[in-house]
Amino acid sequence: MNYQDLFSKALSGMSGNIIREITKVTQQPGFTSLAGGSPSPDCFPARELQEIAAEVIEKKKIAALQYGASEGYLPLREWIAGWVKEKGINATLSQVIITSGSQQGIDLLAKTFLDPGNRVLVENPTYIAAIKIFSVYQSVFEPVFSDGDGIIPESLEEILNQKACKLLYLIPNFQNPSGVTLTAQRRKAISEIVSRHNLILLEDDPYGELRYSGEMIPPMKASDPDGRVVYMGSFSKIICPGLRVAFSIGAPEIMQKVAIGKQNTDMHTSNLSQLLIYEFCSRGLLPAHIEKCCNIYRKKRDMMLELLETHFPAEVSWTKPAGGIFIWAKLPAGVSSMEILKEALKEKLAFIPGEDFFASGGGSNTMRFNFCNITSAQMEDGILRLGQLIKRFLTNK
Amino acid sequence: MNYQDLFSKALSGMSGNIIREITKVTQQPGFTSLAGGSPSPDCFPARELQEIAAEVIEKKKIAALQYGASEGYLPLREWIAGWVKEKGINATLSQVIITSGSQQGIDLLAKTFLDPGNRVLVENPTYIAAIKIFSVYQSVFEPVFSDGDGIIPESLEEILNQKACKLLYLIPNFQNPSGVTLTAQRRKAISEIVSRHNLILLEDDPYGELRYSGEMIPPMKASDPDGRVVYMGSFSKIICPGLRVAFSIGAPEIMQKVAIGKQNTDMHTSNLSQLLIYEFCSRGLLPAHIEKCCNIYRKKRDMMLELLETHFPAEVSWTKPAGGIFIWAKLPAGVSSMEILKEALKEKLAFIPGEDFFASGGGSNTMRFNFCNITSAQMEDGILRLGQLIKRFLTNK
Repeated sequence: MNYQDLFSKALSGMSGNIIREITKVTQQPGFTSLAGGSPSPDCFPARELQEIAAEVIEKKKIAALQYGASEGYLPLREWIAGWVKEKGINATLSQVIITSGSQQGIDLLAKTFLDPGNRVLVENPTYIAAIKIFSVYQSVFEPVFSDGDGIIPESLEEILNQKACKLLYLIPNFQNPSGVTLTAQRRKAISEIVSRHNLILLEDDPYGELRYSGEMIPPMKASDPDGRVVYMGSFSKIICPGLRVAFSIGAPEIMQKVAIGKQNTDMHTSNLSQLLIYEFCSRGLLPAHIEKCCNIYRKKRDMMLELLETHFPAEVSWTKPAGGIFIWAKLPAGVSSMEILKEALKEKLAFIPGEDFFASGGGSNTMRFNFCNITSAQMEDGILRLGQLIKRFLTNK
Repeated sequence: MNYQDLFSKALSGMSGNIIREITKVTQQPGFTSLAGGSPSPDCFPARELQEIAAEVIEKKKIAALQYGASEGYLPLREWIAGWVKEKGINATLSQVIITSGSQQGIDLLAKTFLDPGNRVLVENPTYIAAIKIFSVYQSVFEPVFSDGDGIIPESLEEILNQKACKLLYLIPNFQNPSGVTLTAQRRKAISEIVSRHNLILLEDDPYGELRYSGEMIPPMKASDPDGRVVYMGSFSKIICPGLRVAFSIGAPEIMQKVAIGKQNTDMHTSNLSQLLIYEFCSRGLLPAHIEKCCNIYRKKRDMMLELLETHFPAEVSWTKPAGGIFIWAKLPAGVSSMEILKEALKEKLAFIPGEDFFASGGGSNTMRFNFCNITSAQMEDGILRLGQLIKRFLTNK
């Protein structure tokens, strides 16, 4: 039977996410992988979560196992509303909604705001899954130039002076894939542009807690007088991703639509997942745990930066992120990271080629490395071999 | 700020689900509730799940807490493929996908197949959340007449002879809200119509395991030579709903799209949830647990049927379901169940008025009772008082 004619416009031409395809391959034994967006299992508080689970499933049977509210587990929402105050975000309970990962937050916000053909502004490059999600809603992309300080306000304004857009999607801290952080000055300039052009801003901040150097910059949601910003935070990178618990914070009118959207997809996020995250956080375990993760990841970042300096040819440049989990490298123009990946996979070495992070093409000479989820020995071996491979490509060019 | 102009067509006019709104109210102390679609917490295997959690989180740390495959936890998918063979469904691994509740299965299938304006055939009445989900995809509803044997094949064919439709949504066993089961003869007739009119059939079977009398009727997926049927099963009613674990089974080409759809919403279902369900099932605990639930629920069904007979006026009729969790009652034409609900809520008594289960209106004289999630004392009190209230309404009419 031929299904192709029956598929919706939204999905008929949609292919899988390259990261998840490459990640499947790298799960074979013997692979050295700089690919994927996973945090390190060394940073999962498995013992604590197991102890909590062993205590609360029977004791809080209804909360853990019965149907729950689409908006999320009330004590967790309250805890989050308190927690984000540290970042300068003032949120009432009706502004906080639990999502099954921030990725679902992006999806529900897209569902709330986007009709086919609506224009969405994105950093160039940006998170692949966000590009995929906005594509499902048949959005038109308007990629905005970015540099080492994040998205460029003048480029944003230039586009908006020509075209009406609905939504701006940003990852201001330790961006995926570039590792770049948007400066405080630019955050202010962009907020003004967002307001002037009647945009909704999705501020995606999954890595914000993982800062290894420099000072925290307040989120854009912290100064949002009109209620144009929806802030998305996540426990995936600071506790663990497998439980699928994240949150979105926005104006009550927006979050009411998000709740209805959620009611009509997965009804609510796994209650046991929410309960474990809540118990872990409310018992005061999070600050020390984040510090522990930062110490582990800081060393890994420093090590990878050193290895790149040692083994990569001078023609390649890369970012030096102040946090997060990614380093982003640029090959000379005309060198294809996808071609390099093909060779690398033959010798059981993987990274993510950068092309798919560009919503409107380009970037074929870029590549993304995850420095968190890899042992020191693998990192040494991987960067050494990749450096050699790149040198071979540059010589033969 | 005015958000209304910015909201998408999909959500701008969408309101919340009446069941979830009423359920919120009934959580106040002292309420007697026949509302909601929740199973009884007495049937949640909390002790077993807690024991499993206390054992496996550390031992299977990566499987439980790291990112996982969008298609679901492989051992669980394998276990399900084996389990559904008992019902006559032959499924390879690539045909089984784990979803965050069957509700997400409906959403992902709608996303896979439906463009705005596509026609969807539904039973009349049918599951409210399915109506809501198809509405998000801006579907046009074609409700099909149903009787005590389920959807009527001739009515289905009559519509299809006039209009091209894309999808038929059915709950063949102990339907929500009616409790009715589609006969074997009608399943066959409907399969033929589905094939002749090039339809996709979503067979939603969350209650199938909860049969209290009569013989199991094979699912429509068991005879599906063209691969037109997507079967949805769930652990929500037979283990617990709070973990949000269900599954969809369909042709590989369809399930590949569903997996891409899932990748672009919540990425994957909570791994810990999947692991707990898998361990519970693979340890062989499910059959005895289902039997235990059936024994509890059978008694409750019988008790509610007796109470209705005793306390309800002769002008009211109701279904006698062979399984599931719902009884469906019909008041004389012109009597509004919504008006009765308003009075009932004043005396802390709740049920679900039937109107919202009808995709194109009607049914204002119908009501749904959940007989599972209520104590014997509450059931006696509730049906007695509701009977009195209805009698008052009929007298004053």
